[in-house]
Amino acid sequence: MIIDSTYLKAFTQQVFEKMGCPAEEALLAADCLNQADLRGVDSHGVARLSGYVRLWEKKRLNARPNMRVVHETPSTAVLDADLALGLVAGPKAMRLAMDKARQVGSGWVAVKNSNHYGIAGFHAMMALEEDMIGLSMTNASPLVSPTFSKSRFLGTNPIAVAIPAKDEPPFVMDMATTTVANGKLEVLQRKGEDAPLGWAQDKDGQPTTDAFALKKGGAMLPLGGDREHGSHKGYCLGAMVDIFSSVLSGANYGPWVPPFVAFLEPPTDPVGDGIGHFFGAFRIDAFRPANEFKEHMDNWIRTFRQAEPVNAGDQVLIPGDPERMLTRERLANGVPVQQAVVEDLENLASKFELTFNAKQNA
Amino acid sequence: MIIDSTYLKAFTQQVFEKMGCPAEEALLAADCLNQADLRGVDSHGVARLSGYVRLWEKKRLNARPNMRVVHETPSTAVLDADLALGLVAGPKAMRLAMDKARQVGSGWVAVKNSNHYGIAGFHAMMALEEDMIGLSMTNASPLVSPTFSKSRFLGTNPIAVAIPAKDEPPFVMDMATTTVANGKLEVLQRKGEDAPLGWAQDKDGQPTTDAFALKKGGAMLPLGGDREHGSHKGYCLGAMVDIFSSVLSGANYGPWVPPFVAFLEPPTDPVGDGIGHFFGAFRIDAFRPANEFKEHMDNWIRTFRQAEPVNAGDQVLIPGDPERMLTRERLANGVPVQQAVVEDLENLASKFELTFNAKQNA
Repeated sequence: MIIDSTYLKAFTQQVFEKMGCPAEEALLAADCLNQADLRGVDSHGVARLSGYVRLWEKKRLNARPNMRVVHETPSTAVLDADLALGLVAGPKAMRLAMDKARQVGSGWVAVKNSNHYGIAGFHAMMALEEDMIGLSMTNASPLVSPTFSKSRFLGTNPIAVAIPAKDEPPFVMDMATTTVANGKLEVLQRKGEDAPLGWAQDKDGQPTTDAFALKKGGAMLPLGGDREHGSHKGYCLGAMVDIFSSVLSGANYGPWVPPFVAFLEPPTDPVGDGIGHFFGAFRIDAFRPANEFKEHMDNWIRTFRQAEPVNAGDQVLIPGDPERMLTRERLANGVPVQQAVVEDLENLASKFELTFNAKQNA
Repeated sequence: MIIDSTYLKAFTQQVFEKMGCPAEEALLAADCLNQADLRGVDSHGVARLSGYVRLWEKKRLNARPNMRVVHETPSTAVLDADLALGLVAGPKAMRLAMDKARQVGSGWVAVKNSNHYGIAGFHAMMALEEDMIGLSMTNASPLVSPTFSKSRFLGTNPIAVAIPAKDEPPFVMDMATTTVANGKLEVLQRKGEDAPLGWAQDKDGQPTTDAFALKKGGAMLPLGGDREHGSHKGYCLGAMVDIFSSVLSGANYGPWVPPFVAFLEPPTDPVGDGIGHFFGAFRIDAFRPANEFKEHMDNWIRTFRQAEPVNAGDQVLIPGDPERMLTRERLANGVPVQQAVVEDLENLASKFELTFNAKQNA
């Protein structure tokens, strides 16, 4: 079912307000989920709203957090998010990184005691407004095995980097450090289709095409897919994200990362607080005049767009292009929402005495 | 032929001195090449020495550079390397990043007007001595096609990250953002063997197993190998390295990066100066007490070492493990050097009136 994106966002904001979030934070969190829906990361949009509510009901998420900086230098900080929505802790930490960049050229903020922060790119893109480069990463529920192993020790641990250009749109990469994001496997599950080899392994660590492998005790694979194709590099990247997000901040890392789903209990022997994120901002003019940089970015982007395609009609894309096209389309025509998600939202409406009328806003 | 590593390093230093490098810089550059040989990155060790000499003969490399900081904030700088050996410019920039980290928590230095800087990990690892995290990246001769293209627009653009631990050895990742480094293809060429699909494409952009594909106008592939396995993510990473190294610093990017080999002329329409690198340093205690962090790193490392292997007898490796094992072995028993490289070194000895006696030092 296709639903108007503004309606979805307004409803999402209402739900967060009913949880007790201050209006401004509820709006911010709703915007973050909404951007995921607009950009085509459907698994991280309204589809996830009831998941946050369930964590809140289990008191694993704090709607009125007292977030505070617990360690600081001119260019770095650690933020204790007090179990806030990551959707709120992320922008707060990113703003702090940008404040530091304004002062000393760059800023880096590690966050502990947080929760799922939505799409990594949302936070990184905040830097663009101020002629800064933004970086964002987070660890996540352990679903990924290191190369040579069948233990699920890493999350899909995404990395996002947003770089401003002048007349061209910005360069925005936002990628899980696995072959594919979990959402891609879920799409195949719904369609009843197999996955390509290299996306997942079964519970014995053997290559599989079973899109349900994860639900049967298997694991997702680091970018590269197998050792011959560099899965140890994907493992390195995922590990780096885990360490920056959580060993630097004092959050849980590796197998200790608390699961997003409320029906799974967090490990009883935590090594830190909540999950962790890591944010960075570089002021462009801490390196060279911003206008000069952005003109070269335009040239970089145009040059790569004009790379010779393998197949006539194909075009080389700039990171962020597919999401921009989808955003335009979905702002105009609405966001496709699975029937199960529609029902989920209807249930939330009834729980919180709100109105959710998908049909009237389709 | 197996040659004593100390002998190779001393000879390398002599060659750089004959080129006119100050003794201290010649030693530094020799150490960088030597570390590549010890760590098993044979393509970046003495095998490359004559290449630097040829660039110097063509006046594309400056043995007595006047390197200077051309832009600066408390946490960032741009270094103009004045066409120095990257092997010398890299450590200088890394020291500057570490100085800034000592002052304000983190330091970031972009370098322009440089040359090939050896292995990325050498520079990142400098940070370990001072309880810092080190980052290092560089762009390189364009040999890699963006996803959907047959244009060679990116280098193998490596990323290295070095993170200290307490009793465990450090976490050191050092990876090309391609499926494999070019050196891996060269090994197959010498053996007359085919490459797995996903390593290279032919001149028409089609998948190939031809290990000579690159020499026939083909291209290397970004990490992921093909679109279905996430090659657009490898493309994103390589692009990020290109932009950080060269658009931030004012060096050449994309197809304009000057080739390492002296027989290929640099593009006649440069968009910047030389090639570019990017370095970073975080002081650990800019986030939390260093000892606390390092104890958690030990726990991280031990936990991952104990991940359940797929095959009995296998063990999950920590980034840096294979290189450490090889270094131990090669320090004890010597470095294997191809016959063609031995002849190369003998020619350098005769050119510079030096002695190179491989047999006596085998």
